[in-house]
Amino acid sequence: MKRLVLALGPILLLAILSCPPPSRADEGMWLRDAPPLDQLETRYGFTPTEDWLDHLHKSCVKMGASGSFVSPRGLILTNHHVGAGQLEKLSTPELDLFTSGFVARTQQEELKCPDMEVMVLWEHEDVTERIKSAVRPGMTAGQAEEARRKRMTEVEADSEKETGLRSQVVKLYRGARYHLYRYHRYTDIRLVMAPERAAAFFGGDNDNFEYPRYDLDVCFFRVYENGRPLEVEHYLKVAPGGASDGDLTFVFGHPGRTDRLCTMDHLRFRRDVEMPEALAWLRRREVQMATFMARSAENARIGGEDYFGIQNGRKARTGYLAALQDPLVMNAKLEAENRLRAWVSSDPTRRREWGDAWDAISSAYENYRQDFERHQALDGRAGGWSELFGIARNLARLGQELPKPSSDRLREYRDTNLESLYLGLYSPAPIYPPLEMDRIAGWLSYFVEALGGDDPIVKSVLAGQSPRQRAESLVLGSKLPQVEVRKALADGGAAAIEASDDPMIRLAALLDPESRSVRKLHEDEVEAVETAAYAKIAAAQFALLGEGLYPDATGTLRIAFGPIRGYEEAGRPVPPFTDFAGMFRRHTERAGQAGFELPARWLEAEKRLRPDTPFNFICTADIIGGNSGSPVVNRNAELIGLIFDGNIESLEWDVAYTDERARSVAVDVRAILEALRVVYDAGALADEMEGR
Amino acid sequence: MKRLVLALGPILLLAILSCPPPSRADEGMWLRDAPPLDQLETRYGFTPTEDWLDHLHKSCVKMGASGSFVSPRGLILTNHHVGAGQLEKLSTPELDLFTSGFVARTQQEELKCPDMEVMVLWEHEDVTERIKSAVRPGMTAGQAEEARRKRMTEVEADSEKETGLRSQVVKLYRGARYHLYRYHRYTDIRLVMAPERAAAFFGGDNDNFEYPRYDLDVCFFRVYENGRPLEVEHYLKVAPGGASDGDLTFVFGHPGRTDRLCTMDHLRFRRDVEMPEALAWLRRREVQMATFMARSAENARIGGEDYFGIQNGRKARTGYLAALQDPLVMNAKLEAENRLRAWVSSDPTRRREWGDAWDAISSAYENYRQDFERHQALDGRAGGWSELFGIARNLARLGQELPKPSSDRLREYRDTNLESLYLGLYSPAPIYPPLEMDRIAGWLSYFVEALGGDDPIVKSVLAGQSPRQRAESLVLGSKLPQVEVRKALADGGAAAIEASDDPMIRLAALLDPESRSVRKLHEDEVEAVETAAYAKIAAAQFALLGEGLYPDATGTLRIAFGPIRGYEEAGRPVPPFTDFAGMFRRHTERAGQAGFELPARWLEAEKRLRPDTPFNFICTADIIGGNSGSPVVNRNAELIGLIFDGNIESLEWDVAYTDERARSVAVDVRAILEALRVVYDAGALADEMEGR
Repeated sequence: MKRLVLALGPILLLAILSCPPPSRADEGMWLRDAPPLDQLETRYGFTPTEDWLDHLHKSCVKMGASGSFVSPRGLILTNHHVGAGQLEKLSTPELDLFTSGFVARTQQEELKCPDMEVMVLWEHEDVTERIKSAVRPGMTAGQAEEARRKRMTEVEADSEKETGLRSQVVKLYRGARYHLYRYHRYTDIRLVMAPERAAAFFGGDNDNFEYPRYDLDVCFFRVYENGRPLEVEHYLKVAPGGASDGDLTFVFGHPGRTDRLCTMDHLRFRRDVEMPEALAWLRRREVQMATFMARSAENARIGGEDYFGIQNGRKARTGYLAALQDPLVMNAKLEAENRLRAWVSSDPTRRREWGDAWDAISSAYENYRQDFERHQALDGRAGGWSELFGIARNLARLGQELPKPSSDRLREYRDTNLESLYLGLYSPAPIYPPLEMDRIAGWLSYFVEALGGDDPIVKSVLAGQSPRQRAESLVLGSKLPQVEVRKALADGGAAAIEASDDPMIRLAALLDPESRSVRKLHEDEVEAVETAAYAKIAAAQFALLGEGLYPDATGTLRIAFGPIRGYEEAGRPVPPFTDFAGMFRRHTERAGQAGFELPARWLEAEKRLRPDTPFNFICTADIIGGNSGSPVVNRNAELIGLIFDGNIESLEWDVAYTDERARSVAVDVRAILEALRVVYDAGALADEMEGR
Repeated sequence: MKRLVLALGPILLLAILSCPPPSRADEGMWLRDAPPLDQLETRYGFTPTEDWLDHLHKSCVKMGASGSFVSPRGLILTNHHVGAGQLEKLSTPELDLFTSGFVARTQQEELKCPDMEVMVLWEHEDVTERIKSAVRPGMTAGQAEEARRKRMTEVEADSEKETGLRSQVVKLYRGARYHLYRYHRYTDIRLVMAPERAAAFFGGDNDNFEYPRYDLDVCFFRVYENGRPLEVEHYLKVAPGGASDGDLTFVFGHPGRTDRLCTMDHLRFRRDVEMPEALAWLRRREVQMATFMARSAENARIGGEDYFGIQNGRKARTGYLAALQDPLVMNAKLEAENRLRAWVSSDPTRRREWGDAWDAISSAYENYRQDFERHQALDGRAGGWSELFGIARNLARLGQELPKPSSDRLREYRDTNLESLYLGLYSPAPIYPPLEMDRIAGWLSYFVEALGGDDPIVKSVLAGQSPRQRAESLVLGSKLPQVEVRKALADGGAAAIEASDDPMIRLAALLDPESRSVRKLHEDEVEAVETAAYAKIAAAQFALLGEGLYPDATGTLRIAFGPIRGYEEAGRPVPPFTDFAGMFRRHTERAGQAGFELPARWLEAEKRLRPDTPFNFICTADIIGGNSGSPVVNRNAELIGLIFDGNIESLEWDVAYTDERARSVAVDVRAILEALRVVYDAGALADEMEGR
């Protein structure tokens, strides 16, 4: 924070220093190569070494969300809800892994996942200058953004050619910096152990994002290479004796998205347009899925995983919107923005360099309001998250994109992403026609609402049928559930797509021109403006506040820290740890209510479990969605827990960090070991974690 | 249909006659004084006498929805879901009538309802000329509408003074006619019998609006006058032996609203704006209520009735919207409109008289699109259906309205409506703060979304707090749960309201100017235009098609008819009757799933019940929401059943009647009697119905 003093005039300095955020000093999702050394040293007398950091980051994996290696034989620990997509794909009407749980007693019993990808970050590099130098004077914002996108693809391709590692360029600070990340990538992933959903998600939607909690939200996978368990040098060892109240913790993981650097008008757009609309969509899906699942036990099984995701998203966004609607939160953000803008305005050079950034973002979002719902309906929500529609769209687009040079394609079809894309496209995971019809009928009904029933594309899409009839024709008429049909269409390219009479392919082709056009509009008129404007705002912030700022979350590796600590609620203390006894008490108190059932093997094991085994705990480390499955470690880099949630107060971390009551929630490693040994008869797995 | 032939040129005649609707001949919600004599005679060889009609209409009651007298001692039969509002108000944490059911073994045990009103239609009269003559040349549409509204209030007041009967003028054909209805009104209503919700609503939301069904959706009340059961001359006797497949049925009831006469652009507004927005609101409430109810058993109890209403409304509107989104339905409506408009255009006089009506409605709704959500947020949805907010708004408005002449007031505060209004305002029914806070917090959050977080009234309403904090201050700070506080504020008038520091009163007062202003805008710019335009369209229809048209539903007494008849679904017959055995089978098949539990006394009674007792049946009579509780009678005016639902296909009856698969669903009177005797040990009640 030293530059701050130099850069400020006395009055503004006073204004900023008069509200120092001492209680927020555990804030931050820090970059691997810019850890918060000052804060750790000042507050906790701890200085991480480069070896310590290197060992931890190489022990972590990215797998949708987060996870970590916990044995030298490629064993991965993550959350049950992170592994749930694979659990669903491995389940059948006869064997529902969510109900039965799963334990592989031998390596032979481990179940190969149909389409899972695990990435281990190995190297990273600042490539800001290489990316930014792609922009030439006189380019429009849209052209500049396109030039940067192309350059990103080129940098990635060069890196892959050079190193053989999966390479990805990521935009940081919403436009100020670009980093290149190189990963080892693995796709032979096998399921080792998963508890029942009733134990992993005890308390259901009711207790989700709440505390106290009692969830064994864990799942074990093993990475294989050449048919054998992957040998890893970097993995986490269990902390003997676990952790205690007050202990400093570190969380290494992949937080997905935060909006802390957004301008006020950008946040207002989130508050007044994006979040309300996203919530309306989620509530629509939630009610539709509840209705669908109530129709039969098999519907309940095949819809369960979608339903969890929808409810989870709805509760998270409800909390985020509540923060945006809270005048206290928004006024604090406004004051900070006003201070920065006043400082920029107070000097002609600063004003000329950066002064127009805020208004540029305002008008981009003001214009985008009109297009927002059409964009969603035609692009992100097209097909209502139907698997078949997603496959059809990818096939139709591959036909058009592959003939182009990699850097000219829609970015997800660049060469360096194709392996991942084909993994999903050719997945043998089951596709359920009743669920597909429900998704598509729901989307079609939404599509009519969003664009209006007289829009020409709505009429073309419905083809004279009602949404439900049309969904039936599309799903029952499509051959895309067969993987070989997909492969033939991909191999045949644009000509095969054009010749195909598969109704789902025809739908994707019909939508594609408008879908691309709204996307292009958004890229040129919103994203491009944002990148340029946020680059200026970040430059102003660096100049005013110094380089010691962390960027908004981007789904890449970050480090958070903070002690294990309880809080007060309505005058009563909420202790930081729960235990097994608490879970059984809550089970009894809420007997017969949905979400509070316990699996038979838990009820049977109650007598043999140590009731005071620490089960879940909370800490102040700064996390967000995407951190699910992140390891929690102590100063010795030993595993003490596993992040799986935040409490309801933590949901405002989307825009602002506070630690009065907001907390991250983790499963205690002692509960994991005890449950493996006593409940799941999986002592060998516990031994493997403990290095016995 | 005779005038048709005279009025048409040969080509148009051909166009109309080439699609005669023979299968739709059971269509119609007919006025009491214009029954479908031709159809009944032609199709069923039946001609109702004036005595037959008079006896039936005087046996019917209006009580929110519908019901009928079924004994000379004021015994009323209606649906459980019609009585449910009172069941909720009579329940306590210790005795939940939804779980326990209720049977009064003696008259002393009958439970007085806190705020129920029963109306019996006695006389009716066409007052079209008196209402229309209030309009003077040169008035704007808004002024004309206001003049008609005032005249309606005057006509009602005159009628009450003259007859002592509760008098109400109703607009028919959306503006073409006005009828005056006179009712006997009763407010000493006592609960006699209600089954458990699990029996009344067996199958829950899953089976709602579906067929086959197995629901004992009944509830018995008794009307008292001067402390004694009301003696009635007109009541329905049970049909000995019930009814059979193919029997002609009649339904007398109070259908609430249909949109069959709406213009295409009016329907497009419903499709693209009103229904999507209403559904988004209902889904929001549904998800919030589900979350609220999951928190505790007591929450589940106090929220249950709201939740049923919300789910029911969501499912009904989803069906209506599906019809509006179905190109087949809309194309048929469009053809009919095109024919009428072509006929109007083809003649200069007709064109001059009526030709502008369709465009007038189009532009009114086109303009209203912009105001729609603000109107809802400030008016109909203000307070999120909170009881306390409703009370506060009534108190604040009474203070302003009562000093004015009755015909100058907002219409619900006219003298002839005050008794009904005070019945609700001073109701001793319990008010639950946790539920109130949830409703208000939900509405506040919606209010911020609908108007935008920077709207001045939004900021005033939130008063610097978050929606949830604000809801807590409002509910916990209000004294309005005490009935005497309400009375004191009502007695004190405008001065007392102005002096009150009750936060709920202050909120209502704060919102009132904007709320009145959006309402006035809607009345002047939409309702007024509609009345004038639909009067023209109806005149054109009468001229083209003759007087034999029934008006859209208006919550007033209507007659429907049609035989008991099954249908085909996916090539398989759906028989018209279900039986008790079917219910027990379904209970077993869906064991453990929500909505399919059966009360202990039903399980215990299974062996003693005749398994083949007809339970529910379907017929083609044309009904809609509001018909709930309508008696179903045979040619002898004898009771054979009780309407409680329509199947999913019937939901398109909002816009168009079809009878291929759409059906009304009723409880068979034989199931009612058998359940009373065998399951509920209520033989005396069955005897009373059977006149023993």
